[in-house]
Amino acid sequence: MIHIELVTIGKELLSGLVLNTNASFICHEFAKIGFDIQRHQTLSDDKASLKKGLEEALERSDLVITTGGLGPTCDDETRAVVASIFASEFEYNAELAADLYARYGETLISIKDQATVPKKAILITNPIGTASGLIFARDGHYLACLPGVPKELTVMVTDGLLPFVQEHFPLTDPVYRQAFYFCQLAEMNVDAIMRPLLEKNKKIDVGIYPSHGNVSVVLSTRAESEFEASKIFKPVSTALEMAFSGKQYKSDSGKIEEAIHQLFLEKGYTLSLAESCTGGSIAARLSKLSGASGYFLGGVVAYDNSVKEKVLGVPKQILERFGAVSKETVCIMAKNVREIMKTDYSIAVSGIAGPTGGTEEKPIGMVWAAICSDEFPDAYAWVFRSYGSREMVIESVVNKALGQLWILSSHK
Amino acid sequence: MIHIELVTIGKELLSGLVLNTNASFICHEFAKIGFDIQRHQTLSDDKASLKKGLEEALERSDLVITTGGLGPTCDDETRAVVASIFASEFEYNAELAADLYARYGETLISIKDQATVPKKAILITNPIGTASGLIFARDGHYLACLPGVPKELTVMVTDGLLPFVQEHFPLTDPVYRQAFYFCQLAEMNVDAIMRPLLEKNKKIDVGIYPSHGNVSVVLSTRAESEFEASKIFKPVSTALEMAFSGKQYKSDSGKIEEAIHQLFLEKGYTLSLAESCTGGSIAARLSKLSGASGYFLGGVVAYDNSVKEKVLGVPKQILERFGAVSKETVCIMAKNVREIMKTDYSIAVSGIAGPTGGTEEKPIGMVWAAICSDEFPDAYAWVFRSYGSREMVIESVVNKALGQLWILSSHK
Repeated sequence: MIHIELVTIGKELLSGLVLNTNASFICHEFAKIGFDIQRHQTLSDDKASLKKGLEEALERSDLVITTGGLGPTCDDETRAVVASIFASEFEYNAELAADLYARYGETLISIKDQATVPKKAILITNPIGTASGLIFARDGHYLACLPGVPKELTVMVTDGLLPFVQEHFPLTDPVYRQAFYFCQLAEMNVDAIMRPLLEKNKKIDVGIYPSHGNVSVVLSTRAESEFEASKIFKPVSTALEMAFSGKQYKSDSGKIEEAIHQLFLEKGYTLSLAESCTGGSIAARLSKLSGASGYFLGGVVAYDNSVKEKVLGVPKQILERFGAVSKETVCIMAKNVREIMKTDYSIAVSGIAGPTGGTEEKPIGMVWAAICSDEFPDAYAWVFRSYGSREMVIESVVNKALGQLWILSSHK
Repeated sequence: MIHIELVTIGKELLSGLVLNTNASFICHEFAKIGFDIQRHQTLSDDKASLKKGLEEALERSDLVITTGGLGPTCDDETRAVVASIFASEFEYNAELAADLYARYGETLISIKDQATVPKKAILITNPIGTASGLIFARDGHYLACLPGVPKELTVMVTDGLLPFVQEHFPLTDPVYRQAFYFCQLAEMNVDAIMRPLLEKNKKIDVGIYPSHGNVSVVLSTRAESEFEASKIFKPVSTALEMAFSGKQYKSDSGKIEEAIHQLFLEKGYTLSLAESCTGGSIAARLSKLSGASGYFLGGVVAYDNSVKEKVLGVPKQILERFGAVSKETVCIMAKNVREIMKTDYSIAVSGIAGPTGGTEEKPIGMVWAAICSDEFPDAYAWVFRSYGSREMVIESVVNKALGQLWILSSHK
C-alpha cells in the first residue's frame, strides 16, 4: 500500500479563518477509490518552513499532495518553493497562455504570471481558474500541487489527480470499508454491542462516530476483493443491523437528509416544513442535494410569532397560552403547513436554540417537534433536548427531526 | 514566541468522513489571544504511528495539543498512547468518579473506565461529557489532550486550556492582526492594490482569501503593542479602505451575515426572505447568529412554483410567461414577502443551482435576486452568475444577496 500524505498550505487555515473543506474532500475522494491518506498536515506559507515540511513529507511518502499557494497574488508561495525543491527553472508556456487568454481575455494581467510554470512539472489543467496544477516526480516519489480555491480544486482532483494516481499506483492490497448509519442513537449504545463482536473478529477495524444525534459505524479491513471483505464483515454487520434495525438509514454521504431524499423520490412522497428555532436549516440541508425539488415543495421559516400567526395560522391564544415552544404550537404549525403546501408529510420544530432565552421551565436546547402525515393527521409530536452551542443545537435538531421523519416514513 | 502544534487524531478525519471543525476552532481561539499555531497535522489512531508522531511533535514544540481518542469506546486510543509517552501509570480517580456518577447515574458502565486516568496528568474538567482532558509536562514541553466531540472540546478549550496557556506562556512578542472584509469583490482586484503597498511596507505580512463572492484581507505584524501594530498597518489599511469603501463590511467572524446582523439590530431594521434556489440557506445563515430573532422575522422557502403562487402570490401567468428565474418573478416575491411579514427590507432569490436544470438561455449558476425596501418599493433587481458545485453556487448566492443588502442598507 502506498504512503500518501496531504499538505494543505496557508496561514488562513492555521489562524482558523477558513474551514479546511479541501482536506476532507481529498481524503474522501481517495478513500472512495481504495486509497488511504496516512497523514495530513497544514503548514504556513512561510517559505523556509514550507520547504522543510515538504521535503520531510517527500522523504517518507510515495505521494505528497499539496493544496494552496498556486495563485497569482502576493501571498502565493507554493510554486516557487516546490520549483526550488526539484531544482526546476520556470518557463513561459505559450500553449497554456493561449488557453488562458482565450478564456479570460487579453486584459487579465495575471495570465503572464500564471502561464509561467516550472519546467520539470507535468501540468494538471484547471478548467475554471488560472492556476494550473503541478506534478513533480523524483526516484519514484511524487509531489502533486493543486490550488486552494475549492471549486477549482474539486474538479482538478476528480478529473486530473485521481486518474493520474490510479494509473501510476495500481492497487494491490486495498482497504475495503462498509459504513452503517443510525439516527436517534448514542455512541455508547453502539459500543456496548461492538466490543464483544470485535474481540472475536480481529481482522476488522472499527470507527464509531457520533454526529449531533446520529452515529456512524465504519468497518474496514484489508482484503483481496470486495466479496472477501463482505464475508469478513458479515458477523459484525449482521449483529449491528439486527440490534438497531429501526434506526438504520442508508446514505452514501452518511447524511440523514440523503436517506430522506432517496426515499421520498423513490416513493413519490412530498414534504413541507415549518421551522422556528432551526431558522431554515432543515430546508437548507435538504435543498443542498440535487433533485430535492422533486419532493421538497417548500417551507415557512416562522421565526417571529407574527409569522407563525399570519402565514401558518397559529391562533394568538395558543401562542399566548402555551407559548411558541409547545406541543400545541408545533402540531398546528405542522398541520397547517402541510395543508397550505399540500404535501404528504410535514415537519414543524420550535425550540430554544440559545445561548440566551432559556428559562427553568423551558431550558436552552429544549425543542418541540411534530410530523404530520396521513398516518398522523393531527401530528405526531415529541419533545427532546439538545446540548452545545447554538450552532450545535440547530444541527442536532435538524438531525433529530429528519431522523424521526425517516423512522415514521420508511417503516410504513 | 512559543511553538504550538495541533494534532487532531482519528481515522474519520483522514477518510474524509468528518469535517475538521475542531482544528479551525482551536486555531481561531489561539489567534484571538495572540498565539500562532505553527503546524497542524491529522494522525490516524493507529497506536504505533500515533506515538511516533506525537513524540516528534513534542520534540520540536513547546506545546502540543491533541484532540480525539479520549472516550470510552474501543477505537479511543489516545489515552493509552500518551500515558506510555510519559511513562505514566493509570489510577482510579475517586473524586472524578463521584462527579461523573452524580451527573450520569450509577448505571453508566463507562464511568469506571473514564475515571481511570494517567497519574502524571493534570486534568481539564469536561463539564458536559465523561472524558477529562489531560495535560502532561516534561522539560518545559507540554502536551494537552482534549476529547474530539466538538461541544465538549469547545468549552474545555475556552474554560480550561486557554487559561492554562496564558498562565504558563506569557506573551512577549505577540502577532497582531487586522482583518478587512469586502463583499462583491474578486481576489484579483485586491491584489492589484496590495502589491505596490506591500513593497513599501515590508513589516506587514498579508493574506488575501476569496470566499464565494467575498474577499478577506488579513494584515499581520509582530509589534510590541496593538497601538504600534496599527501604526505599522496604517498606510496599507487606509489605501485599502479608500479603494473599496462601498464594499467593505465589519464583522468579527468575516461572515457577511454578521455585518447585516449588527447593522439591522443597531438601526432597528427588520428583514424577511423569499428563497427559491437557496432553499432556506440565507435564513439558516442568519438564524445561526444569536439574537437574529431581533430583526429576522421569517421567510418563505418557495422551492416549488406552487408555493411561489399560493404563499407568495406570484401570478401563474408571470411564472408561465417569464419563468421562475426572472426579474419579474423575484420582484413580486420580494415585494409580497415584505408585505406579508411587514418588514423594512426583503430579499428574494431564484436561480439554477445545478448541477442539472440549466439551459442555454438560463445556464446553471444564473440567478435573479431582488431587494425591496422603502427606497426600492418595487424592488431593486439584478442578475448574476455563480460557478462551482451546487453547494458552492448556493453559498455564493447567499453571499451575493446579503452583500447587496449590505451595500443598499448600510449607505442610506
